[in-house]
Amino acid sequence: MQKMGGLTQTEADALLAANLEFYQAFTSHDLAGMERVWAAETPVLCLHPGWELLRGRAAVLESWRQILSNPEAPHVVVHDDQAFLFGEVGIVTCEEELDGGSLAATNMFVKEQGLWRLVHHQASPILSRRAEPAPPGRLH
Amino acid sequence: MQKMGGLTQTEADALLAANLEFYQAFTSHDLAGMERVWAAETPVLCLHPGWELLRGRAAVLESWRQILSNPEAPHVVVHDDQAFLFGEVGIVTCEEELDGGSLAATNMFVKEQGLWRLVHHQASPILSRRAEPAPPGRLH
Repeated sequence: MQKMGGLTQTEADALLAANLEFYQAFTSHDLAGMERVWAAETPVLCLHPGWELLRGRAAVLESWRQILSNPEAPHVVVHDDQAFLFGEVGIVTCEEELDGGSLAATNMFVKEQGLWRLVHHQASPILSRRAEPAPPGRLH
Repeated sequence: MQKMGGLTQTEADALLAANLEFYQAFTSHDLAGMERVWAAETPVLCLHPGWELLRGRAAVLESWRQILSNPEAPHVVVHDDQAFLFGEVGIVTCEEELDGGSLAATNMFVKEQGLWRLVHHQASPILSRRAEPAPPGRLH
């Protein structure tokens, strides 16, 4: 785990722990855990890979209910998790290893009643691991 | 343009305007404009579609220099831009229409010297436009 310079050890650890709770709920198909992870008082957003934007707790949790209720939902291993703090917003970037490939994810958290809660999750497939940026294509 | 309930008209407009400045710099291959859009005092992140995470202003702007220096870089049309405020952080979600398809993007801004500046951009290809969420696959 890497921590941003401006973050206290405790705050970075709390963010990274909240991020791991999200993936723990995901990989153990724990819908109740997933409901706890997402913010309840703050508007939430979610961008599953390939999907359009989901907006609002009801739509986001319904998507997770569908995903987690499938016994063939993917197993996820997370690595390279890094915490960043922007004012009152915490960001964790990480890579998700799934059966079908790697995703780059950004998870955004705000505090509710003293606990970091997820307000936005976006995961994008990683197609290139070149050290040099890929040449410009039709998709920037 | 849609605005979140808790946002003042002015603040939402300022966020959406900053977002449009980013796409204006992109589509007009304006590297100087792109350098102005990105935060200078705050750590920045960027996740181009298919790429690994880029971290830090130097790496992020170098990626844009490469993209914008290519005369065949894509033309981008943006729609469905929506502004959200989370404490001191502004988020704009939008869809990017490129020659090769649609992307769902999240752009995250913080204020520097009173102006919204970009600190994170992530764009993910949209593969499904079904009203119902796609069935769970290998990528959640």
